[in-house]
Amino acid sequence: MTKILILGGGGMIGQKLAAELAANGLNGDRNIAVTLHDIAFPSNSAPGDQVAGDVSVAGTMKAAVANKPDLIFHLASVVSGEAEEDYSKGWAVNMHPMWELMEALRALHKADVQYRPKVVFSSSIAVFGAPYPDAIGDEFLSAPLSSYGAQKAVCELMLSDASRKGFVDGISIRLPTICVRPGLPNKAASGFFSGIIREPLNGKKAVLPVEDTVRHWHASPRSAVGFLTHAAALDTNLLNGRRALNMPGFSCTVAEQIEALRNAAGEDAVRLIRREPDENIIAIVKNWPRNFETARALKLGFKAEANFDEIIQVYVEDELS
Amino acid sequence: MTKILILGGGGMIGQKLAAELAANGLNGDRNIAVTLHDIAFPSNSAPGDQVAGDVSVAGTMKAAVANKPDLIFHLASVVSGEAEEDYSKGWAVNMHPMWELMEALRALHKADVQYRPKVVFSSSIAVFGAPYPDAIGDEFLSAPLSSYGAQKAVCELMLSDASRKGFVDGISIRLPTICVRPGLPNKAASGFFSGIIREPLNGKKAVLPVEDTVRHWHASPRSAVGFLTHAAALDTNLLNGRRALNMPGFSCTVAEQIEALRNAAGEDAVRLIRREPDENIIAIVKNWPRNFETARALKLGFKAEANFDEIIQVYVEDELS
Repeated sequence: MTKILILGGGGMIGQKLAAELAANGLNGDRNIAVTLHDIAFPSNSAPGDQVAGDVSVAGTMKAAVANKPDLIFHLASVVSGEAEEDYSKGWAVNMHPMWELMEALRALHKADVQYRPKVVFSSSIAVFGAPYPDAIGDEFLSAPLSSYGAQKAVCELMLSDASRKGFVDGISIRLPTICVRPGLPNKAASGFFSGIIREPLNGKKAVLPVEDTVRHWHASPRSAVGFLTHAAALDTNLLNGRRALNMPGFSCTVAEQIEALRNAAGEDAVRLIRREPDENIIAIVKNWPRNFETARALKLGFKAEANFDEIIQVYVEDELS
Repeated sequence: MTKILILGGGGMIGQKLAAELAANGLNGDRNIAVTLHDIAFPSNSAPGDQVAGDVSVAGTMKAAVANKPDLIFHLASVVSGEAEEDYSKGWAVNMHPMWELMEALRALHKADVQYRPKVVFSSSIAVFGAPYPDAIGDEFLSAPLSSYGAQKAVCELMLSDASRKGFVDGISIRLPTICVRPGLPNKAASGFFSGIIREPLNGKKAVLPVEDTVRHWHASPRSAVGFLTHAAALDTNLLNGRRALNMPGFSCTVAEQIEALRNAAGEDAVRLIRREPDENIIAIVKNWPRNFETARALKLGFKAEANFDEIIQVYVEDELS
C-alpha cells in the first residue's frame, strides 16, 4: 500500500491529480491510499481522505506527515497575484512551510533511516525573470521578478539540498502556465490566458488585458497531472543532482490562442473577447517567459501538448462533456 | 554621518573591511560610524563599536539593526565545511537570519518609509554546481551541490525580492575563493588553496590534498574588501533587477599556484608542500567552479588580480610586512 499525501489537495491541480489517482491509480498501481490536505475542499471533492490544515501555521507540516507518507505532492501555494499583493502571506504560505516540511521529514528519517519519501514539488516558470534568450534553456539562471517566483526558487533549493543530504528524494517541476483553467478566475495575473478561451467557450464575455502579440508558455491541466505522476515515478538519479526541471509546454501568442479558439468554436466565440488594456497586468506579463527549450524534461519522458488546439480540446473533453 | 553595520565583523573579511574603513573611510567618506557585530572578536580587533550576538538566535537581527544603519554588510556565516557537517547549524546561521534581517528592515521601513538601507551580502561561487561550461557566464543557473551554496542562493533570492519590493536596496556579491587567507586554517574545504601558499611563505609545511591539475577561481582578501566597498557605492539601478553578481577573479590550476609560489619564495618554499590525497576533499572540489567570464561585474567596475603572482604579492604586503 503506497501512502500518498497531496498538500494543496483542495486546489485545481490537486483535485485533478486526486481524480486521476482514483480513476487509474498511480501510474497503474491501484494499491494506494490518498490523503488530501488543504485549508478547504470543494463540495464535490475528488476521492481521498481529507485533512484540513493551514500549512502556514507552525506544526501543520509535522502533523501532515506524521503517518510517514511514501509519496508527497507539495502543491500548496497562494497564487502569484496574491503573493505579490501580500508579501507576508506569500512568504508565509509559499516558502516557510517547505522548510517545516523538510525539518519534519528529516526528524522522521532520523528516527527511521529507511524512511526517505519521494517529494514532488510544483514549482513554476515564475522562477525566471527577464531579459530572456529566444528560448529559455535548461541552464538559464533563476532571477525571479515576483515574490511568487522567489518563493518557488527558494523551495527548490531547500528540497534539492534535503535530497542531496539523503532524507528525502525530491524533484521540483516548473510548471508552464496551466491553460485552460476551469472554474472561476483566481488572483493569478496569468488568469486571462485561460479566461479568453474558457469564457467564450461557455458563451460568456472575456477581457483581454494585453496585446495580441504577447507570447507565453502553456500546458493543459491534464499535462500538469501527467508531469506530477511521471515525476513521482522518475528515478531521480537521472537528474544528476539538478532536481529542478523546466516542464515542456507550447509557446504561442495571444493571437494564436484566439485563432485556436476560432477553430474550435467559431467567430461568435471570438467576438466575446473584449480588449481592455490593463497597465498593471501588461507590466507584469512583459517580464514573463515566452518560450523554452526543454531538452532535459523531454528526454526524461515528460510530455505536453503540441499546439494550442490540443490544449483547447483537453478543456472541451475534461470540462464540457 | 553614515552608520555602517558589519554583520560578521569579527571574521577575517569583516576585520579587513573594518580596517579599510578606519584607514580610508567608505570610498573616501570619513564621516562614518562603524559597528562590528559577531559572536566573538579577535583581541586585536580592527576599530569599530563591538556588539556581541549570535545571528541564529531569534531577535538578534532585529536588535542589531534597531538604530537604523544606513549601510549593512552581511558577512555572518559558517563556512562550507561546517555547513556540510552540521546541516542544522548551517541553515540556522547561513539562511534563517537573512529572513529575520529582511523582516526587521521591513518593519523599520514600514514605520519610516524614508528608511531603505543598502545591504551588501557576501554570497559565494558555491551557489554553482557541476557540470559547468568552460567559463561560467552571468546567466548560468545556480544549482548548488553543498548546503553552504544552497543557503547562500536562498539568501540572494530573499534579498533580491525584498529589494524589488523597495524596503531595502540589496546586492549579493558572489565571492571567489579568497586566497591567500591569513591566519590559521578553518573548516572550509577550500582551505588548502591558501594553505599551500601561506604555510610555505611562513616556513611551515603544508598539505596538498588534490591533484596539481585542479583549476579554481581566486581573488585576494584585499580584492574582497574592494568588492564590498564598491558594491556599497554602486547604483543598484544598473543591476536591472539581477542583484546577484559573480565577482571577478583569476582562474588557475594548483600547479600554477605552486609556480607563483616558486617565483615568490623559491624552491625551498615549494618543497614544504606535501602531497597527501584526501578523497573527501577531492570529491568536494571536483564539483567546484573552475573559471568564470564576469562581464557584468567588470563593466560595473569591480576589480580583482590579473594573475596569481599578484595574489601572493597582496599576502606578502598585507600580512608579512
